[in-house]
Amino acid sequence: MIRIGILGYGNLGRGVECAVKNASDMELAAVFTRRDPAAVKSRTAGVPVVSADDAEKWKDRIDVLILCGGSATDLPVLTPKFAKLFDVIDSFDTHARIPDHFAAVDAAAKATGHLAMISVGWDPGLFSLNRVYAQSILENGRDYTFWGKGVSQGHSDAVRRIEGVKNAKQYTCPVESALEAVRNGENPELTTRQKHTREVFVVAEPGADLARIEREIKTMPNYFADYDTFVHFVDEEEFAKNHSGLAHGGFVIRAGKTGWENENSHVIEYSLKLDSNPEFTTCVLIAYARALTRMKKEGRTGCATVLDVPPAYLSAMSGEELRAHCL
Amino acid sequence: MIRIGILGYGNLGRGVECAVKNASDMELAAVFTRRDPAAVKSRTAGVPVVSADDAEKWKDRIDVLILCGGSATDLPVLTPKFAKLFDVIDSFDTHARIPDHFAAVDAAAKATGHLAMISVGWDPGLFSLNRVYAQSILENGRDYTFWGKGVSQGHSDAVRRIEGVKNAKQYTCPVESALEAVRNGENPELTTRQKHTREVFVVAEPGADLARIEREIKTMPNYFADYDTFVHFVDEEEFAKNHSGLAHGGFVIRAGKTGWENENSHVIEYSLKLDSNPEFTTCVLIAYARALTRMKKEGRTGCATVLDVPPAYLSAMSGEELRAHCL
Repeated sequence: MIRIGILGYGNLGRGVECAVKNASDMELAAVFTRRDPAAVKSRTAGVPVVSADDAEKWKDRIDVLILCGGSATDLPVLTPKFAKLFDVIDSFDTHARIPDHFAAVDAAAKATGHLAMISVGWDPGLFSLNRVYAQSILENGRDYTFWGKGVSQGHSDAVRRIEGVKNAKQYTCPVESALEAVRNGENPELTTRQKHTREVFVVAEPGADLARIEREIKTMPNYFADYDTFVHFVDEEEFAKNHSGLAHGGFVIRAGKTGWENENSHVIEYSLKLDSNPEFTTCVLIAYARALTRMKKEGRTGCATVLDVPPAYLSAMSGEELRAHCL
Repeated sequence: MIRIGILGYGNLGRGVECAVKNASDMELAAVFTRRDPAAVKSRTAGVPVVSADDAEKWKDRIDVLILCGGSATDLPVLTPKFAKLFDVIDSFDTHARIPDHFAAVDAAAKATGHLAMISVGWDPGLFSLNRVYAQSILENGRDYTFWGKGVSQGHSDAVRRIEGVKNAKQYTCPVESALEAVRNGENPELTTRQKHTREVFVVAEPGADLARIEREIKTMPNYFADYDTFVHFVDEEEFAKNHSGLAHGGFVIRAGKTGWENENSHVIEYSLKLDSNPEFTTCVLIAYARALTRMKKEGRTGCATVLDVPPAYLSAMSGEELRAHCL
């Protein structure tokens, strides 16, 4: 059995717990928290909740520690720190800072003989895999990533910070005509506005100036100004009923040409439609935790990403079974 | 530069030649043929056509030999034979015989310190990868593979063997309603008939009994009897105009559940839409030939499949570039 530890018990941590429960070759050993452990209760019977400060005592009782923190401030500190004590895996998702994060984690893990895996999830993660496979195979082509329809936590948070907003949820939606043009192999040049729209559902405080709120949303730099944004005001009841989920998804599409005169077109498309973004992300983390234990057994240390992992290592099946049933 | 050799100069061999021309880190070293070399002319200037019997003389001048033969009788002999002389790669696609082929190639390659890769293409190949990734991640689910719309060579050949048939082409088509049910996460039980239909375009000999031909097609065991089959008789002009391509494609879809009570649904879908089945297959072969040279440098010998290859090895980019631009 692969002994899993969870650090951080929010949406992602609880998702990992759920995914471990469904994996036949894994067991949850402990939940580590930076809060008061007495205030946190794990859902899995018999699993202790331990202060993150005491994690070192567990270093021989955990095979993979899954770091369930945020990418903005938590993981840049936590992943290098815990990679000195454990084999770790995280879902760091700030694309632009991946090279720095990789370097810090690689140094920490190599120095202590541990193996770490970063940016495991669906984007970065499965979408990255599909970009690399498609680019490597259809060299003469172009790929596009579309997100949605799905909830963006960052954009929802930004709207909630506007005065007079009581609650808000933001959906990112791919523009259907852009998707179609890409699928048709037209290789269009697409601006930010042409790829995605943003749809916002807002519960306003009583008496708030709705026109001002809408204007502040639509003109917010970086978050909304470059998009066609649609704002809907709803009451709390409707918000709770229709906008409490964390659905997401998206598409990676590459169209390219082959042939002596580039006469043949090909389209590779990968898509995800997810009811729960955090739960799906944790399923990816769990599969890569299994892979990590196999790479560790081969003597690998330092930092790796999904791009370094042979697909067979994700499966609980043997190479022989995979060749007979899946190849 | 990776020096590529081609054995067999049919559709697949010519596709490899084309793909090598477009790859910046590869060059075509030689074309090997079992026919009279004087009767074969390569399209690439300066590339010699050599008798397959003289291949051994080239063993230090080829990095990867790509075996472009058929799976029925050619590859079971050729791949083990040439794996004793070269690092080789093939697109063996008889799913049920993969374990035997693997064992034979593995023994031949290991005995002589070579590395071989078998069953590289899109199914087996990219579709296999997607089955393994999706099964490993969404453990509680079910996956489906649909093929088409596309040309099946084997079925077209079978129709051409019927008396009175001058030419024929068979298209395999996924049943749209079945695709939709799978995409909706209904996890339907589907019979062979419910998944695909078969569409056949026939040029009959003058005076042939069309009713008999249609009946013989529709009742042919294994090939057509278990399917809803639609037969169209066309003249040679229409056949040449509309049915001379080798388009293909298909879908791998897995739907599954997560959550403490399995309350959330997720759908992973991968699809290909290909103008030319052999040309796309050769693009996959070329990318894996690159990966093979990297695995060989690590000291790996014996037989591998796409499931054993880290995705980063397919790309001409370095790990650092991939992390910065694709992850």
